[in-house]
Amino acid sequence: MRILLAFASLFVSLSLAAGSDTLNLMPMPASIQAGGGQLSLERSFSVAMSGYRDAALDRAVQRFLAQLSRQTGIPFSQKTGGVSNPTLTIRADHAREKVQKLGEDEAYELAVSGSGATLSAPNPLGILRGLQTFLQLVNITPSGFAVPELNIKDQPRFPWRGTLIDVGRHFIPLDVLKRNVDGLAAVKMNVLHWHLYDDQGFRIESKRFPKLQQDGSGGQYYTQDEIREFVAYAYERGVRIVPEFEMPGHSRSVLAGYPELGSGSGPYPVEPGAPDVAIDPTREETYKFIDKFIEEMSKLFPDEYVHIGGDEVNPEPWNANPKIQEFIRAHGMKNNQDLQAYFNQRVQKILDKHHKIMIGWDEVLHPELPKTVVVQSWRGQESLAAAARQGYRGLLSFGYYLDLMWPAARHYAGDPMSGDAANLTSEEKGRILGGESCMWSEWVTPENIDSRIWPRNAAIAERLWSPPEVQDPASMYRRLSSVSQSLEWLGLTQRSSLHPALERMSGGGDVKALGVLAGVVEPVKDYVRMDGVKGPWDFRAPLNHLIDIVRPESDQAREFAEMVQSYIAGGHQDARAAAEIRQRLITWRDNDARLHAELEGSFLLQELVPLSQNLSTLGSAGLFALDYLEKATPSPENWRSQQLAWIEQTKAPTANLLMMVTAPVQQLVEASGRERTQR
Amino acid sequence: MRILLAFASLFVSLSLAAGSDTLNLMPMPASIQAGGGQLSLERSFSVAMSGYRDAALDRAVQRFLAQLSRQTGIPFSQKTGGVSNPTLTIRADHAREKVQKLGEDEAYELAVSGSGATLSAPNPLGILRGLQTFLQLVNITPSGFAVPELNIKDQPRFPWRGTLIDVGRHFIPLDVLKRNVDGLAAVKMNVLHWHLYDDQGFRIESKRFPKLQQDGSGGQYYTQDEIREFVAYAYERGVRIVPEFEMPGHSRSVLAGYPELGSGSGPYPVEPGAPDVAIDPTREETYKFIDKFIEEMSKLFPDEYVHIGGDEVNPEPWNANPKIQEFIRAHGMKNNQDLQAYFNQRVQKILDKHHKIMIGWDEVLHPELPKTVVVQSWRGQESLAAAARQGYRGLLSFGYYLDLMWPAARHYAGDPMSGDAANLTSEEKGRILGGESCMWSEWVTPENIDSRIWPRNAAIAERLWSPPEVQDPASMYRRLSSVSQSLEWLGLTQRSSLHPALERMSGGGDVKALGVLAGVVEPVKDYVRMDGVKGPWDFRAPLNHLIDIVRPESDQAREFAEMVQSYIAGGHQDARAAAEIRQRLITWRDNDARLHAELEGSFLLQELVPLSQNLSTLGSAGLFALDYLEKATPSPENWRSQQLAWIEQTKAPTANLLMMVTAPVQQLVEASGRERTQR
Repeated sequence: MRILLAFASLFVSLSLAAGSDTLNLMPMPASIQAGGGQLSLERSFSVAMSGYRDAALDRAVQRFLAQLSRQTGIPFSQKTGGVSNPTLTIRADHAREKVQKLGEDEAYELAVSGSGATLSAPNPLGILRGLQTFLQLVNITPSGFAVPELNIKDQPRFPWRGTLIDVGRHFIPLDVLKRNVDGLAAVKMNVLHWHLYDDQGFRIESKRFPKLQQDGSGGQYYTQDEIREFVAYAYERGVRIVPEFEMPGHSRSVLAGYPELGSGSGPYPVEPGAPDVAIDPTREETYKFIDKFIEEMSKLFPDEYVHIGGDEVNPEPWNANPKIQEFIRAHGMKNNQDLQAYFNQRVQKILDKHHKIMIGWDEVLHPELPKTVVVQSWRGQESLAAAARQGYRGLLSFGYYLDLMWPAARHYAGDPMSGDAANLTSEEKGRILGGESCMWSEWVTPENIDSRIWPRNAAIAERLWSPPEVQDPASMYRRLSSVSQSLEWLGLTQRSSLHPALERMSGGGDVKALGVLAGVVEPVKDYVRMDGVKGPWDFRAPLNHLIDIVRPESDQAREFAEMVQSYIAGGHQDARAAAEIRQRLITWRDNDARLHAELEGSFLLQELVPLSQNLSTLGSAGLFALDYLEKATPSPENWRSQQLAWIEQTKAPTANLLMMVTAPVQQLVEASGRERTQR
Repeated sequence: MRILLAFASLFVSLSLAAGSDTLNLMPMPASIQAGGGQLSLERSFSVAMSGYRDAALDRAVQRFLAQLSRQTGIPFSQKTGGVSNPTLTIRADHAREKVQKLGEDEAYELAVSGSGATLSAPNPLGILRGLQTFLQLVNITPSGFAVPELNIKDQPRFPWRGTLIDVGRHFIPLDVLKRNVDGLAAVKMNVLHWHLYDDQGFRIESKRFPKLQQDGSGGQYYTQDEIREFVAYAYERGVRIVPEFEMPGHSRSVLAGYPELGSGSGPYPVEPGAPDVAIDPTREETYKFIDKFIEEMSKLFPDEYVHIGGDEVNPEPWNANPKIQEFIRAHGMKNNQDLQAYFNQRVQKILDKHHKIMIGWDEVLHPELPKTVVVQSWRGQESLAAAARQGYRGLLSFGYYLDLMWPAARHYAGDPMSGDAANLTSEEKGRILGGESCMWSEWVTPENIDSRIWPRNAAIAERLWSPPEVQDPASMYRRLSSVSQSLEWLGLTQRSSLHPALERMSGGGDVKALGVLAGVVEPVKDYVRMDGVKGPWDFRAPLNHLIDIVRPESDQAREFAEMVQSYIAGGHQDARAAAEIRQRLITWRDNDARLHAELEGSFLLQELVPLSQNLSTLGSAGLFALDYLEKATPSPENWRSQQLAWIEQTKAPTANLLMMVTAPVQQLVEASGRERTQR
């Protein structure tokens, strides 16, 4: 593994120098050798298959051809048999596992010459990965669609590259999940961690315990047939479905139907603002229930791993129950943590009985658990390293929480092997299996979930697949934009969902001016939105405000900030850059006048009135500063200090939105004062 | 019927005066009485059902609530039982027919007050129509989503309001058809005329004659299960599926598998450029085949009507067969037309045996056919009137061909009762059942079909539903834009498909400049594109050029033309109008410089180079003219005549695209010369 990686890195360096960075590949392959020519994709494009072949692989090739047709608009023939002079030859050596295994070989080689291409891999899993690479290589040229000549040897850095989707807090229908699995496969992720329930909703049909869905789902759950179909769907795309059955906390929706398992007196209806409750770990009935439940679920979810959650158990419900506290004392435990460790050991034995390996969040880590257990760290590399030192395998999720609305570059900079993990021995490092991004769904709906996951998730996918040397954020953003575009051909809606939502808010008509405002703001970060909720958080409330719609990261603001920085760094000599900056500032200055009536006319837009005014004023301030920068005369100090004080105020969120062009305008204003001394 | 209409018209006039034209309803209801207040749509919005109720109606209400949630972003409860204080009460008197009947009552009444709404109808069909009206009434206000207070009494003008979709020339998958059925239902159309095969492809699974799909479909057909599911899907939305089994012409794909039925010697593979062939009407085997085929199809398609095509039978194949010519002589027929009449009579008897009523295109009209036959006219109102005079019922499709790329206003102006039909007696007029728009698919793919059908089809739907007095194109365009927006909430893609297609053509990146060009051009009209094809038309060719993507009608060009006309008519005094005109002209003038490199870099865009240059030059010419108009000084005559000569040249299509801002720029240039004399 180590040797392979070193080998791979060498090639990446070579190839980056040779221009592979102009390729729109994401994740970047381990090794690329670029040639000079290209393979034209004519209408006669055809695929032949040699070596191992099965029906699932055939279907994968059909999907590849259909996707190639969508991307190009060329109706390629879907024939894969009896092709005499194939454009692309596919060769797998042997079958893949019937149930996709952690660490199963995903390597592939793709060789493209002017006359044809060959994709080979030990098994169909590698072929799936290589087909995605081929799709990303297709570009338009003056003479037609083409793929550049090159040789790619590729394999993942980490064997576990996943995304958690929480369907408990807001139900996400299967069609939305399916297109997201397509997205995972497109960026070579291999795990969907399905957070199947939480306090707000239970989403699985249980035949053994039907009150789970009857009382816990509000009618929104997946039938067993649907789950089986979805698991098969994901398997065909090389994605493992790892289910999470959260316990003993975060499971109010379980107790809705089975209050006798709760630590309090119940009932526990699923409703906003209900007090925390936890499963009672002191009763034998609890373990009987879990045993039967896991038995049933094991038949639905073939993956070897089962996640039992285990995080954030509120001590209050256990503290409030004298029997539980008596149990702790009677069994010589020190506290609730010991009780949870006892619970986890019991659960782990049940999982073991059903041939499942346990995963849990950091909190489950306890020396009495067997070393097979996998720890998923939401706390950070330190916690991950600690687990690895104790002999446990681990996954990093800290730094990959998509609901925190961070920019892609911030996720991208997080590495499972960084921080304390960098100090591990080679053997300990081998226990770090990879990571998972997490799409917690407090503020997520079927309408906006794609825009929360994508495209940022592709940057995390690259972190987990590509050699660690692949680090340049500028290259990442360029390729991220391209991958986002092609993800929409899969049916994902992270870009297309914006426009209709703006129209809904404005009541129709031209939404250009509203789009200008939407394009330069971002949702507040971290847990600011939740912290600002007055009263109990209502998971049934409409999510139709601008914050629910705008993308987590404003590309326009990022690009403007780069433009301003480079203009100032260059001593504001660049007249062309100044003109581009000016054009944007004028648009912003004039936008509020265009937008004002529209904002007043809609109850969903009224809260944006001050934000729109701020944008307009920022535009004016920036223009004033730019005038002085261009004249090479310092701006009046009075004006400047007034402006800077006012700008400071605009940094506070409005309607839970951050104005992202504040900082670059502030830089312009500041620079406009330094003029004389600088030159 | 006549009395009802007169009554309805009175109310429309009243209500138009009272401001109902500000409502975004399409088709406009027969009668609206507007109140002053509004009904707020709170999260507590609920529906109760009284009167007749069945599972299908319940599902319709669920779909209505889901759609209301999509439109507003509010997760309304889908409960319809046990609601104590409902916002909307629905009451149907009795069941609808098990198989939707021509002329079945579609009337409904919708009464909205500040405290609640009531929707009542004789049967669930009317409820379906009324729920669509309710959805169109929802608008956003400063205090929330709301529906205006009003009373609507509504029923259709014509009982047959359909759209033909041709899936023979290009296969259209069921999911695309389903969303189009949703679109038909949204604008109260009630027939999908399914043109199920043509020379280029046979799209039905036949168990009796499996070579039909095996040899005639290229693998692209609907299974019988899919067809049954689709028919049920349409029924639940109040849309009849009327199948068309085209014969004796346009049926090469039938003869691919069964060449013995053909008039020549075969074989007849489905391929581009194959010579015309027709079914041999002189052999008894032909009628045995049709009998068995219709028997099988009758079980799949429950509708009482079956379309047998019958149009455009090329005389050549019959002329070339001596046996057929001998048959004509031996039976005392004059010509091929008589032979087709004989064929139609035989087919009609077969249909009759299977309890089906025959529809055919104009050509089937022949005095020996029974008066039950319905004639669908692609030739015009004259042909329709002639049929009605002879006692046949008829449908108008002339004027409603969506593939001709006409503006909505042109379709809208066509009326089944106009032209010669206006001279019919009242009884004869009663035979005109309505009309159908036609989406012939020579240039249509699953990707662009929505943009060919919508939103123009909504204008045709209004023509067929609303009272004939509803005629104002300006009101139509305003409402059409709104209905187009809401159709996208159903999953239709007539607007959202443009952007990704532009990105495909440009290879990604910013497509703003390409969008400017795409926004002011239209596809060539009528059959100009087909006429320009060199060699045989290749139905397998990629449809990924700009012509395949741009909308049939440029809203921007239409709006610019109106702006220029009003500016010139007003004696070019309106400085604000001049500024708006100037802004557009500047954008166009500068666009080519932004776009040029992009055009050169893509084989799909290179053909647009002259078009882009023309737009730029038109922008410059318009600006020059505008300068003179604003100065109130005539432009130099030399310049003007040069410009006008050049403008004339730009009227010729480039890459099968028409530059739609040519005419208004020409008007500016012309007006700039008249200046001095005018004032």
